[in-house]
Amino acid sequence: MTRIRRLVLDVLKPHHPSTIELAGKLSGVDGVTGVNIGLYEVDQRTENIKITIEGDNIEYEVVKQEIEKLGAVIHSIDEVAAGSLLVEEVETLQDR
Amino acid sequence: MTRIRRLVLDVLKPHHPSTIELAGKLSGVDGVTGVNIGLYEVDQRTENIKITIEGDNIEYEVVKQEIEKLGAVIHSIDEVAAGSLLVEEVETLQDR
Amino acid sequence: MTRIRRLVLDVLKPHHPSTIELAGKLSGVDGVTGVNIGLYEVDQRTENIKITIEGDNIEYEVVKQEIEKLGAVIHSIDEVAAGSLLVEEVETLQDR
Amino acid sequence: MTRIRRLVLDVLKPHHPSTIELAGKLSGVDGVTGVNIGLYEVDQRTENIKITIEGDNIEYEVVKQEIEKLGAVIHSIDEVAAGSLLVEEVETLQDR
Amino acid sequence: MTRIRRLVLDVLKPHHPSTIELAGKLSGVDGVTGVNIGLYEVDQRTENIKITIEGDNIEYEVVKQEIEKLGAVIHSIDEVAAGSLLVEEVETLQDR
Amino acid sequence: MTRIRRLVLDVLKPHHPSTIELAGKLSGVDGVTGVNIGLYEVDQRTENIKITIEGDNIEYEVVKQEIEKLGAVIHSIDEVAAGSLLVEEVETLQDR
Amino acid sequence: MTRIRRLVLDVLKPHHPSTIELAGKLSGVDGVTGVNIGLYEVDQRTENIKITIEGDNIEYEVVKQEIEKLGAVIHSIDEVAAGSLLVEEVETLQDR
Repeated sequence: MTRIRRLVLDVLKPHHPSTIELAGKLSGVDGVTGVNIGLYEVDQRTENIKITIEGDNIEYEVVKQEIEKLGAVIHSIDEVAAGSLLVEEVETLQDR
Repeated sequence: MTRIRRLVLDVLKPHHPSTIELAGKLSGVDGVTGVNIGLYEVDQRTENIKITIEGDNIEYEVVKQEIEKLGAVIHSIDEVAAGSLLVEEVETLQDR
Repeated sequence: MTRIRRLVLDVLKPHHPSTIELAGKLSGVDGVTGVNIGLYEVDQRTENIKITIEGDNIEYEVVKQEIEKLGAVIHSIDEVAAGSLLVEEVETLQDR
Repeated sequence: MTRIRRLVLDVLKPHHPSTIELAGKLSGVDGVTGVNIGLYEVDQRTENIKITIEGDNIEYEVVKQEIEKLGAVIHSIDEVAAGSLLVEEVETLQDR
Repeated sequence: MTRIRRLVLDVLKPHHPSTIELAGKLSGVDGVTGVNIGLYEVDQRTENIKITIEGDNIEYEVVKQEIEKLGAVIHSIDEVAAGSLLVEEVETLQDR
Repeated sequence: MTRIRRLVLDVLKPHHPSTIELAGKLSGVDGVTGVNIGLYEVDQRTENIKITIEGDNIEYEVVKQEIEKLGAVIHSIDEVAAGSLLVEEVETLQDR
Repeated sequence: MTRIRRLVLDVLKPHHPSTIELAGKLSGVDGVTGVNIGLYEVDQRTENIKITIEGDNIEYEVVKQEIEKLGAVIHSIDEVAAGSLLVEEVETLQDR
């Protein structure tokens, strides 16, 4: 059984509700242990945010629903980590 | 029950009261274990500061009231972390 | 008996299935303990991604098959680590 | 009871007494466990220094008096941390 | 008795066999605990790779033979560490 | 009783005696546990060096005498740390 | 009794013998626990290398003899650390 342990999402959201409410909602989802929302940019009507979600069995579709319920849109899945252990992305010679 | 574990706020404040008094006030709020206030910029009448607040159950509205009671204004919520564990923002390939 | 402990692959994939499905598939392969997929770039029809795979006995051919089954192509093997311990690449004077 | 755990001060001082004497004095103040003084710049008559003070209950006014007794002036309070735990300033997406 | 604990080699190899096979071979050599192969550059007929080898008693000539058996050539020995402990290269004021 | 725990000195010395002899001498001073001497620059007749001294009760005047006995001169005290604990200089928003 | 715990040397050596042989020789010297040799630059007849030596009682003259026996020359002593503990060079405000 494969388990999603981390998702990093680039998300576009309206000003309301706030990132605080969104973080509260997402951290209540089953299989999620913690959520971190950082603010990339604020425009007149929207905010570009980065959502880092960690847990032992994250369900992407449930997360997606919660985000969309609050009027926000997932722009891209910048990182996903799955398996029995959380593996970090490794910087290689190609990245330098 | 979802718990806010960290808030990072961009705040504009008058010179008085000092960041020391503000740090003292905020660190006394229920659910807050520690506060760090860094100075971005000082102008003739105001100071732009960054407030990092950590705890096991931070209440944003209470924090906001304390800040506004001292004549300061929250300019933006640059980061919020919630859940049973404090999750850090993860730098992805998109950020490099 | 030599054991592959880490593979870092540069991969080109179609938009569907998502990196989430790919991470799920790869993390289910025998000998794999965890998978991390980061997004380099998104074009009109394809996505350039970086796949970091760690385990105690990764079989490259099996991984390759899983990737190709989902319509993706391994562009290059950017890093491989093998042996009884996971050894990291060491930055030398030549790399500075 | 809120406790100041760290102060970082930008200070302008005359050449004499030395930073050694100042560090000695400040580290003797009640509630202070350690002091670090770094030299930013030396001019003909003054020195611009950075004072990092840590403790479990630092009293800013007492520190200020000690500094002013030695002929120096606090230019700005660059960081203050208070609470039951020492919280570090967190770098956010806005800082990058 | 002096023991080689780490070798970092700059190597030029043909496309075949792959770095995976080379990593497997080298990690099977006596006295080697782990091998990491990173890809610097790929040309039409060759690949420039970095091989980091760690162990408790690495024999350079044996390693060299294995590399040359697979048609590759050691371009330079970028780092070697020997002794009863693995000592890291230390960045000095001259390197900044 | 306030205790100096670290001194970082910018020092100008003649080529002889060597930094090895100077490090040996300074590490023998009471209250000093270790000394690190890095080479900034070598000119025709002098060397600009950085001396990091750590201990549980360093006496600056004794250190100064030892340095001057070997014909060297303290150019500046770049850092001093004192107190019951060794406190590090903290990078603030002003330093970035 | 003062003890040299680390030496970092800038050395110019002929191509032969190799850095592997030199590392082997130096790691056999009394009081040395480990040696790391990094390659700065290769010219037609010589190699510029950095030798990091650590131990609990390194004798510089013995090390110097071993290096010179193999036809190499110490260009400069870039770092020396002595005392009962190994102290690292500390980056100060002056170095930034």
